[in-house]
Amino acid sequence: MNADKRGQKIRVHPRLSASNYWLVMSDILLALDYGGTKLSAAIARRDEREWLALERVMSPPNKDATWDQETMRALARRVLNRRAPIAIGISFGGPVDAAHGRVILSHHFPGWENIALREQWQDEFNVPASVDNDANVGALGEFTFGAGQVETLYATSLPVRASSLLYITVRTGVGGGWILDGKIWRGADAMAGEIGHTIYDPRGPECVCGRRGCVEVMACGPAIARDARTRGLQIDPLTGESVARAANAGDPIARAVMDDAARALGFGIGTAITLINPTRVVIGGGVSKSGERWWSVVRASARSNTLPQIRTDIVPAALGDDAPLWGAIALARELI
Amino acid sequence: MNADKRGQKIRVHPRLSASNYWLVMSDILLALDYGGTKLSAAIARRDEREWLALERVMSPPNKDATWDQETMRALARRVLNRRAPIAIGISFGGPVDAAHGRVILSHHFPGWENIALREQWQDEFNVPASVDNDANVGALGEFTFGAGQVETLYATSLPVRASSLLYITVRTGVGGGWILDGKIWRGADAMAGEIGHTIYDPRGPECVCGRRGCVEVMACGPAIARDARTRGLQIDPLTGESVARAANAGDPIARAVMDDAARALGFGIGTAITLINPTRVVIGGGVSKSGERWWSVVRASARSNTLPQIRTDIVPAALGDDAPLWGAIALARELI
Repeated sequence: MNADKRGQKIRVHPRLSASNYWLVMSDILLALDYGGTKLSAAIARRDEREWLALERVMSPPNKDATWDQETMRALARRVLNRRAPIAIGISFGGPVDAAHGRVILSHHFPGWENIALREQWQDEFNVPASVDNDANVGALGEFTFGAGQVETLYATSLPVRASSLLYITVRTGVGGGWILDGKIWRGADAMAGEIGHTIYDPRGPECVCGRRGCVEVMACGPAIARDARTRGLQIDPLTGESVARAANAGDPIARAVMDDAARALGFGIGTAITLINPTRVVIGGGVSKSGERWWSVVRASARSNTLPQIRTDIVPAALGDDAPLWGAIALARELI
Repeated sequence: MNADKRGQKIRVHPRLSASNYWLVMSDILLALDYGGTKLSAAIARRDEREWLALERVMSPPNKDATWDQETMRALARRVLNRRAPIAIGISFGGPVDAAHGRVILSHHFPGWENIALREQWQDEFNVPASVDNDANVGALGEFTFGAGQVETLYATSLPVRASSLLYITVRTGVGGGWILDGKIWRGADAMAGEIGHTIYDPRGPECVCGRRGCVEVMACGPAIARDARTRGLQIDPLTGESVARAANAGDPIARAVMDDAARALGFGIGTAITLINPTRVVIGGGVSKSGERWWSVVRASARSNTLPQIRTDIVPAALGDDAPLWGAIALARELI
């Protein structure tokens, strides 16, 4: 195999000069996560499952796309430390047109309308890049490196991978992403996985989406705080996390609030299981750390809302906040 | 290519004798549909979209698996009329273990517990066979030959095929089958597609599945008749069909009953769309022939139960009662 052919195989960009050719012979993958509250960049070798370097920055209030882009560029340079990546995977916290590598918009910050994020990063490092929204990328991360590994019943067997998975994050909102038959399932309009906007109670509170009683507006962190306030729970600060702590300490109002939120989420999960029957449902995000009682109510509610023949299990996310970063590594691996 | 190789290519069964070798050089596919109320057998050429022969028999009350098997064998011989099929596709109205070609049971008739239906038919004609439940096979039929053909916006283009589809039948029950990425999606326990058992109203009437307010128990034909009776509608016979006729003739009680049933179905469809965002939802079965008003309520209810960015359309089945038979042809085609 001559140098040219080797070059083609690892997709050297035509603009790459001879002088830094050796750089792309590395096996380093760059993962970027544009989250709602923080930005993260990390690198890992293609066949390893540990970070070579990882950097995070919390977002200031009132940030915009320019701040995001400049900060992420600095983070990437810092984790790379003059090494060159061979491919880039990108997770974005908002709607993405993955086929064209474009961010559609951010629901939280201005300046993200119709941004060619994939192309920007391809041009930055002259290597292929791939971008998708954080729910899909997180689902791919858990599937490839985390809770998608299903233990077998036979002690002598290696763990096998689930063939399908619904990944749900419960924090300030409720997001969802599907892996079906080993691949991200995006749907015809790239809108699949919106379990947060399936309806639990048509007479419930109004949701950001304009309808009433969506799973999100009944089960996310702010919903828990809102319900606790309505029922007169006196703690300060009043957040999803503090209500969960009060519930675990035995406060009856806090328990009732947490149970209701868990029941709403379980209802949505039961419906998703009845419709698609994935191997696993994986739940991450801050609210999923609310303790054993929350988990048992979620599981019982999901179980009572599906058919008894279905054995889909419901498990905690294994990668925590790193799921989108590891999913970005999996996206990048697909490019090489 | 010598005769041996040609023989391998079309999978001549090793037991096939030389004397009837010429028979398998045909291109005839055999389709069998074990429905709840009737049995059907038909044959078509591999590349044609018209039946060469089709026979149906209505089932007597109190039939069992033995009657089904003997009758279907007679129907198959009649449509084949001494011709040999090169592959067999089978649709069964009940749970099927498609991977192993076995019927699990029939919810309606005895004797179907754990029957190796695929093997029986393979042995009968010494050709490959494939079996799946009627919702999945019907979905494949509509996808391949019916409503899965999406008209393009450009008059000069050929029709393109939807890449994903949810097929729903509404008659004595509400069944559903998914085609995702061009293939039947069965789920981890072969239970995917059970839209009839997603819950619409947890305080609703009890369903055959043991829970309350499933879409099926609110939207199927018998549910329409039950609601009409409860509200005092005086028609004889009182069936889903007669209530639909009364609604279309302007009877206000019948209209309210039909609207409620359509609203429940639309709710389930909206949730399915929000979760999976297929290209199309296709509705068949007797209740889907209830007229324009029923369709507009189903569509409006689905629309109000999903996000505005999702453009999945909801269309009538194109193949009617033949969807499982044509799906069986598509199953058989996959074998050759």
